[in-house]
Amino acid sequence: MTTFDVLTIGNAIVDIIARCEERFLTDNGIIKSAMNLIDAERAELLYSRMGPALEASGGSAGNTAAGIASLGGKAAYFGKIANDQLGEIFTHDIQAQGVHFRTQPLDTFPPTARSMIFVTEDGERSMNTYLGACVELGPEDVEPDVVASAAVTYFEGYLWDPPRAKEAIRDAARIAHENGREVSMTLSDSFCVNRYRAEFLELMTSGTVDIVFANRAEALALYETEDFSEALTRLARDCRLAAVTMSEEGSIIVRGNERIKVEATKVSRVVDTTGAGDLYAAGFLFGYTAGKPLDICGKLGSLAAGIVIEQVGPRPMLSLKDAAAKAGLL
Amino acid sequence: MTTFDVLTIGNAIVDIIARCEERFLTDNGIIKSAMNLIDAERAELLYSRMGPALEASGGSAGNTAAGIASLGGKAAYFGKIANDQLGEIFTHDIQAQGVHFRTQPLDTFPPTARSMIFVTEDGERSMNTYLGACVELGPEDVEPDVVASAAVTYFEGYLWDPPRAKEAIRDAARIAHENGREVSMTLSDSFCVNRYRAEFLELMTSGTVDIVFANRAEALALYETEDFSEALTRLARDCRLAAVTMSEEGSIIVRGNERIKVEATKVSRVVDTTGAGDLYAAGFLFGYTAGKPLDICGKLGSLAAGIVIEQVGPRPMLSLKDAAAKAGLL
Repeated sequence: MTTFDVLTIGNAIVDIIARCEERFLTDNGIIKSAMNLIDAERAELLYSRMGPALEASGGSAGNTAAGIASLGGKAAYFGKIANDQLGEIFTHDIQAQGVHFRTQPLDTFPPTARSMIFVTEDGERSMNTYLGACVELGPEDVEPDVVASAAVTYFEGYLWDPPRAKEAIRDAARIAHENGREVSMTLSDSFCVNRYRAEFLELMTSGTVDIVFANRAEALALYETEDFSEALTRLARDCRLAAVTMSEEGSIIVRGNERIKVEATKVSRVVDTTGAGDLYAAGFLFGYTAGKPLDICGKLGSLAAGIVIEQVGPRPMLSLKDAAAKAGLL
Repeated sequence: MTTFDVLTIGNAIVDIIARCEERFLTDNGIIKSAMNLIDAERAELLYSRMGPALEASGGSAGNTAAGIASLGGKAAYFGKIANDQLGEIFTHDIQAQGVHFRTQPLDTFPPTARSMIFVTEDGERSMNTYLGACVELGPEDVEPDVVASAAVTYFEGYLWDPPRAKEAIRDAARIAHENGREVSMTLSDSFCVNRYRAEFLELMTSGTVDIVFANRAEALALYETEDFSEALTRLARDCRLAAVTMSEEGSIIVRGNERIKVEATKVSRVVDTTGAGDLYAAGFLFGYTAGKPLDICGKLGSLAAGIVIEQVGPRPMLSLKDAAAKAGLL
């Protein structure tokens, strides 16, 4: 049995990416920089209004798994696709990156999930996700031997949107802990935090989750505060380790009374922020499972995030391993 | 009835794009910089060996139609897709660009065509095309009123690969000429020229085609010569107007005894040459149907080609109209 550094679990999504004017977002009631959940009907409407697009495999945890593999780590992924062309694309891309991915696909309906991502001039991405096949992810999709052999099992807060994925997560977390492994989650999106605040807090305070990733807005939303240092204090109390990203201000790693500030990587131009948080988590967890000190974990996160926002699409097209070696982080 | 500047006809293809090492091409018997035709079995094999990829609507004539629309021209397109997810992507992208596209799709089999495009470090693209639904394009797909109302009907030499598209082209050319319109073709690919040399020459010398686009290698292949000036002389004799692209050396426009040399646009970095010839034709035909002098037509071609090779994917993501206005070409 292979041993994995990180297993990630999430909504398996193909991104459909186009640029748009700011006004398009307001005209269409799209919340900027957020993940907007949409149904099939709205997906059709928005697609009819979207400009010519590019397609790329995405999904938050899928991007994280791809990033870990690109850094040279051993990654696995659970996520639900359908047996259709988008599902084939998703499967190809994650497997071609070297990630273990064998979740049983749905026959054909609902189809593989897609997210229409509108990127504005400032590089911010506003996502509109039709969950499709993702609604069928359940406990039967947990591969116990993979969970047992992964140093960290990481999942998306987004998984609280589909109905049964949370059961899969609770099972996976139990198996992980029974095997002396760690469990990590990302809070995903501040609106997602607002939808599931109590459950996310329970996951943390019950010890189901050991390591939490969040951005500033999500951390503030979790504790319904405007006071960032208060949010950090409460995070430190509610979980064993947290890393909070702050866009161009870098990130802060929180463990008990420790606070480690990490600089953001300088980027020449923010092309498309899609995947920034996912790749931060990838860099961090790659470093963490390789036994690097926390500040290096944070720097690996900054490096990977900095690379993905300089390109279109949520998974780095160049080798993160080469980039990390060049930066002296390996 | 709308009047179109240009109707283009071609193989409707979704591109699957990934970078690769030079060695990958030789190891897999892929002819560099060419369009390699593949069957379903080889498509599966190559895809299994391909790295993580991006998807983008392509197809040579489709790219040309999209480019003309991006310049502000009125474009129409005929091409065969299947009623599947890739077909939906193709349809969306070309219609979202403002191109008239109403060719009846196949039900589901064969599926929409795809081309696996491997881009090497030098930016050269090597295409591996599975024609899928394109093999069903036939005379029944010619919309006579669209042909009759288009100033130029333009088609790909690639259409000689599927079995019945050539019948559609002959019908369309007849309708175009009956309506006092012009007909244009691209020689597409030097290997394609080798496959159909006699037929391409007949199209030109019979007056079925008025305007020919080619690159240097295709022009040389057409006349089985190594002497470029001889090829140009013979082109001038065999068709009314030709434009021959020469990569970074620009292009040369040939009409009778006239030779108009056009500079290539300076590009900062050749990222991906996919679509360069298609976009040259787009710029040229946009200018031509707008009544611009031939040197401006060539400059519009250079501009559009220069823009598309600085990005990944075969259709410019920025507005060519804005770029042309900025360059003082409108």
